[in-house]
Amino acid sequence: MFAGPLDKCLNIEDLRLAAKRRAHKMVFDYIDGGADDEVTLRGNSSAFDRYRLLYKTLVGVDDVDPSVTLLGQKLQVPFFCSPAAGNRLFHTEGERAVAKAAAERGTIYSLSTLSSISIEEIAKLTNGPKWFQLYVWKDRVLVKEMLDRAREAGYKAMILTVDFAITGNRERDPRNGFTIPPKYGPRQAIEAMKAPFWTLDFLFGAGIRYANLSEKTAAVSLNQFVAEQLHAGFNWKDAEWLLGEWSGPSIIKGIVREDDALHAASTGFNAAMVSNHGGRQLDHSAAPIEALEPIVQAAGDRLEVILDGGVRRGTDVLKALALGAKAVSFARPYLYGLAAGGERGVNRALEIMEDAVRRDMALMGVRNVDEIDRSFLLDPNTQ
Amino acid sequence: MFAGPLDKCLNIEDLRLAAKRRAHKMVFDYIDGGADDEVTLRGNSSAFDRYRLLYKTLVGVDDVDPSVTLLGQKLQVPFFCSPAAGNRLFHTEGERAVAKAAAERGTIYSLSTLSSISIEEIAKLTNGPKWFQLYVWKDRVLVKEMLDRAREAGYKAMILTVDFAITGNRERDPRNGFTIPPKYGPRQAIEAMKAPFWTLDFLFGAGIRYANLSEKTAAVSLNQFVAEQLHAGFNWKDAEWLLGEWSGPSIIKGIVREDDALHAASTGFNAAMVSNHGGRQLDHSAAPIEALEPIVQAAGDRLEVILDGGVRRGTDVLKALALGAKAVSFARPYLYGLAAGGERGVNRALEIMEDAVRRDMALMGVRNVDEIDRSFLLDPNTQ
Amino acid sequence: MFAGPLDKCLNIEDLRLAAKRRAHKMVFDYIDGGADDEVTLRGNSSAFDRYRLLYKTLVGVDDVDPSVTLLGQKLQVPFFCSPAAGNRLFHTEGERAVAKAAAERGTIYSLSTLSSISIEEIAKLTNGPKWFQLYVWKDRVLVKEMLDRAREAGYKAMILTVDFAITGNRERDPRNGFTIPPKYGPRQAIEAMKAPFWTLDFLFGAGIRYANLSEKTAAVSLNQFVAEQLHAGFNWKDAEWLLGEWSGPSIIKGIVREDDALHAASTGFNAAMVSNHGGRQLDHSAAPIEALEPIVQAAGDRLEVILDGGVRRGTDVLKALALGAKAVSFARPYLYGLAAGGERGVNRALEIMEDAVRRDMALMGVRNVDEIDRSFLLDPNTQ
Amino acid sequence: MFAGPLDKCLNIEDLRLAAKRRAHKMVFDYIDGGADDEVTLRGNSSAFDRYRLLYKTLVGVDDVDPSVTLLGQKLQVPFFCSPAAGNRLFHTEGERAVAKAAAERGTIYSLSTLSSISIEEIAKLTNGPKWFQLYVWKDRVLVKEMLDRAREAGYKAMILTVDFAITGNRERDPRNGFTIPPKYGPRQAIEAMKAPFWTLDFLFGAGIRYANLSEKTAAVSLNQFVAEQLHAGFNWKDAEWLLGEWSGPSIIKGIVREDDALHAASTGFNAAMVSNHGGRQLDHSAAPIEALEPIVQAAGDRLEVILDGGVRRGTDVLKALALGAKAVSFARPYLYGLAAGGERGVNRALEIMEDAVRRDMALMGVRNVDEIDRSFLLDPNTQ
Repeated sequence: MFAGPLDKCLNIEDLRLAAKRRAHKMVFDYIDGGADDEVTLRGNSSAFDRYRLLYKTLVGVDDVDPSVTLLGQKLQVPFFCSPAAGNRLFHTEGERAVAKAAAERGTIYSLSTLSSISIEEIAKLTNGPKWFQLYVWKDRVLVKEMLDRAREAGYKAMILTVDFAITGNRERDPRNGFTIPPKYGPRQAIEAMKAPFWTLDFLFGAGIRYANLSEKTAAVSLNQFVAEQLHAGFNWKDAEWLLGEWSGPSIIKGIVREDDALHAASTGFNAAMVSNHGGRQLDHSAAPIEALEPIVQAAGDRLEVILDGGVRRGTDVLKALALGAKAVSFARPYLYGLAAGGERGVNRALEIMEDAVRRDMALMGVRNVDEIDRSFLLDPNTQ
Repeated sequence: MFAGPLDKCLNIEDLRLAAKRRAHKMVFDYIDGGADDEVTLRGNSSAFDRYRLLYKTLVGVDDVDPSVTLLGQKLQVPFFCSPAAGNRLFHTEGERAVAKAAAERGTIYSLSTLSSISIEEIAKLTNGPKWFQLYVWKDRVLVKEMLDRAREAGYKAMILTVDFAITGNRERDPRNGFTIPPKYGPRQAIEAMKAPFWTLDFLFGAGIRYANLSEKTAAVSLNQFVAEQLHAGFNWKDAEWLLGEWSGPSIIKGIVREDDALHAASTGFNAAMVSNHGGRQLDHSAAPIEALEPIVQAAGDRLEVILDGGVRRGTDVLKALALGAKAVSFARPYLYGLAAGGERGVNRALEIMEDAVRRDMALMGVRNVDEIDRSFLLDPNTQ
Repeated sequence: MFAGPLDKCLNIEDLRLAAKRRAHKMVFDYIDGGADDEVTLRGNSSAFDRYRLLYKTLVGVDDVDPSVTLLGQKLQVPFFCSPAAGNRLFHTEGERAVAKAAAERGTIYSLSTLSSISIEEIAKLTNGPKWFQLYVWKDRVLVKEMLDRAREAGYKAMILTVDFAITGNRERDPRNGFTIPPKYGPRQAIEAMKAPFWTLDFLFGAGIRYANLSEKTAAVSLNQFVAEQLHAGFNWKDAEWLLGEWSGPSIIKGIVREDDALHAASTGFNAAMVSNHGGRQLDHSAAPIEALEPIVQAAGDRLEVILDGGVRRGTDVLKALALGAKAVSFARPYLYGLAAGGERGVNRALEIMEDAVRRDMALMGVRNVDEIDRSFLLDPNTQ
Repeated sequence: MFAGPLDKCLNIEDLRLAAKRRAHKMVFDYIDGGADDEVTLRGNSSAFDRYRLLYKTLVGVDDVDPSVTLLGQKLQVPFFCSPAAGNRLFHTEGERAVAKAAAERGTIYSLSTLSSISIEEIAKLTNGPKWFQLYVWKDRVLVKEMLDRAREAGYKAMILTVDFAITGNRERDPRNGFTIPPKYGPRQAIEAMKAPFWTLDFLFGAGIRYANLSEKTAAVSLNQFVAEQLHAGFNWKDAEWLLGEWSGPSIIKGIVREDDALHAASTGFNAAMVSNHGGRQLDHSAAPIEALEPIVQAAGDRLEVILDGGVRRGTDVLKALALGAKAVSFARPYLYGLAAGGERGVNRALEIMEDAVRRDMALMGVRNVDEIDRSFLLDPNTQ
């Protein structure tokens, strides 16, 4: 596999390899890794391979329109940027790079609660559509404050991440000495030579401050903060309370079961992200692309369903749409780009994905996403 | 795997390796590669492995006849040569070598619109049956002119390639600097030492002139020409117009869906090539051997169905016939031969395939292709 | 994979690698190996991968309780220690280490008939729940004597191992010269340098005395004793007799068939361990996780069903519970720990498993094991 | 894998590796290889892996009897030696070694028409049960003469091989220069150093005389003879004639289809060997273990069905019996033994197989082969 400068990166895997070369091993592994044996991490992508495409011909595809409408918002492409914590860990430009690239591409940027740039700063940076992501914190005052800030700053929708009651078991991190602050031993020192500027920035700069929580985390480490604040007891009742505090559209992120989808619909969520947190939480979870169809069938009339996880190619996007997703989202593709080259890298990642979707739509024989249906997939059970 | 001189090449894979050794990497990869992750490229061949053979015994196979009749034309073997562009890229003899070898073998040669030898020159070269292949060009005058020339030159049937609305994403080519004209850097220079005569011929000779389009492409590169002329908007209506311009038999090439087969039949096509362009267009497309049976069942009474893609062994041919194909076609096997040794290499490729088909028919217990039916296949779902 | 000191071992595989580095090859292979081609050995673990998890969200998992009740005995964790012979082979501390670690963890320790520490010594060591395991010996007087000793020493239940009518074909052992007493040649001498203390202990100490059988095996080797005493003719009638000699709860260990489970229930067993002896007896046996569900469906109302075999991760435990097991058991995980570091190693193994089960229950969205049901599994046939 | 002296060979794979080390590459490959891509060669063995065993317990297996009755003949073991041509190619002792070892083991030896020891010499060598194998020759006088000699010499049954209308495409042989007589170039000379005595014997001795055909092949090479005499036109009518010339029991060898089995029964055959010639004829043929059950179900009441192909372990034998075979047969296991060490090697091969069958019967919980039924197999479709 080839992985040269950004303009020579032809696909997301190229960006991944470029990130691997540029970033500290601990940072790369933090992006790249998953829980336990990484069965779900790999499965999220490989499960797409079970579906084969039955493309149409002679449709007339001189004018392909990949736009979708999600919760009333028009997106120029059928994908958007999933939330991801602490992006300054990966590149000095951090969330700024991603927010700007997403806006340029005409799609949604979702800001993590644990962003390293503040809600307000991101909001001022672009006019693009923005969503705000929440974890299930214990401190209701803190949560309300966050929601108020997000509303005020113009974030259109709220994402509640529900597959993070506790932190998953990602073994690459302790093996790399990756903690916040990081441990520096001989192994880390060698890695530091690979990316000296990043290391300086990371160790002495503001890279790891969690901008939205700065006061709260002044005295304690983030790990401590997360451990203390993550509310494992958070339940559907709490979610109901939360929805009461937010007037805009709301998305539940991290479900793989039909009954949870139905529950989310009755509780008042407007959309659901079928996701297993990128294989970073419970290993052996079903892949989103496997879990998608039953959820669409059970609750697709009450929820807009988004596939999140494992997307690397344009055909992955089209398969998800064929199984009933309204759009897909991803984080690793743009994080690889970010780690490989800041905003330019994120831009390249989104460009690669858009080019691929447009090209694959033409090759599939569809002029717009509404034309994509189940008939384009060969049933995996005949495989 | 062994890959010595042509007479020591025992199978198509041997020819492939011989081509790999003899040809520039960029040329070999152009033949050998596919779109995106090459999942479909590999799948086209590996999908044959899902079918196992239940051969017959004590049939009496002293007189095996592998001939078939395709669109009224008797072929001595149940396979023919698929169209492929610019064969002089692969060997100085180019399309001449293939046309002559096909005629000698008593089977059809299909000439690509983008051939590097002209329609007329090929026609004068042999008395063998010839078909002419068309892409979906924008310029109707150009198309009519081509059809007139092909008709006049005695081409019996027209193939319309419909899985090429735009060009697929073949990543080996840009990585190799393969463009027309090619880029020459240090890497290419090293490769050039491997095949100095080809390099001279290719750079300074006429190798890359596209003979049927010489006037049109005088000033522009082929890539530019194709980009400008490929008519992504071409649709069933246009196909109808095209059929009106051609009185002989017509074949649609590149379908994998039942509804497209039915559409082709109603539009007036006489045959269909189940094909995904050798995995060079939409990656993750269903393999032809998977798509074949439903198409035969849906439209086999109205169209003669041809399998194109992945064929490397005699058993591949027999499996396709068992699933209802009237014949199979292929390009890579003879292109490997061409790149490995010109006309002698093409001859060897076709000889290997004919020997294999004859031998495998005897071992299958069938005396002619009409005796091959579904009962010879163990259902893959029991696998 | 990483395998440093015990506290750096993050999972059972790390402990396995630590054991591999510390122990003699012959000892490691004795723990690690299986019968014939080790198809079942590998399959016992890999069969878990066929089941994917459909976790629940927003359940409120601040208070996860992994305890189970097995044959009326409350266990703090849903797993316990399977019996394993001659633990002093693996570490000087032998069965003592395991019994103490199990008691500390609040779970059952099962002592093998072929333990290298006596029934009585183990009993005095801890107050934890203890079961006693029997092979099918010929000598009924010996068997009764054993049962009396076990009863007197406070062992709560009897396990009868029924998949050991004769010894399986484990080819690593003869290749390593592993016999009792061991053969020492140059290869063994080199290995001895790796673990000199163990070698001394093993060769000159009491390591290989089989404590419960010391008188009987004084003059003969253990292999001889086992060969002479293993009662291949032992049958359901004999089992009935045996149950008559034991008043407490009884477990049959080593069944994979529904009819055997039903037979066990009618004979009077209270529980069944679905097990194939860790892939050490009949190669190509069904994996316990595959055999489990039919047995639960057939006999789950009459027997408490335990899964034994292949468990390495918390998700393995949860999958077994989802398919109807009351608990799981394992030997290799703690034996790797024992060989890697004695009691501390066993402790680490059990700690890894408990942490994993607790974490995975939280991530699965279950507060106690009764909440785990079949709905958490994606049917493998849709895979 | 280990492969030392014969007594250190623990399984058939060890014998295979011992043969590989001792024999010329061309000879080893001749035994070891198959047709085309060797998909069927590998599949014959790997298809067994799809079946998992559900063993029984507490049956009482102190007295295991592996004998079977085949065509009225009692065999001490449920397997026998398939015919194989020209065994002196593999070892100076040739067919003598195999016939003696089979007799010692109380099972059938099948002599090939193309044996390198004569019908009569083998007959005088042992009192064991012997069958005689025929190819479909053109020369009926030759055939009748052979049958008369076999009858007179006391061969009990005739095997007609029907999957050899022509020779399969085994590519290892031409690559190795393996022809009769062999070609000797530098590569062969190097190999010759590995086994100088064999080379002398093979080149100057009588090793490659085909004893039953000595007059006929005096002047021509075997290849020529086989090419001239193999009767590709041989059909069911000819088979009927043949059966009329033979009064004893008759076996058809090489079928994989139900209709051929039924045809064989009506034609008067008494038994059928489900076989694809060890993957040496038509590549992609169904594996015998896959083809077995439908044939047993269709014709098991009219034919005794034997599985031939892929057997390497005791569990393979038991799986075939569970699917309805009366016995299994094999050639490669004893040919590896022969090439590795003459009669001692064949003895070792048969001993390994008998030990394995006896051990695996005990572990399966069956006392005799009649107790083995379909209930011992987990359905592969649930895999």
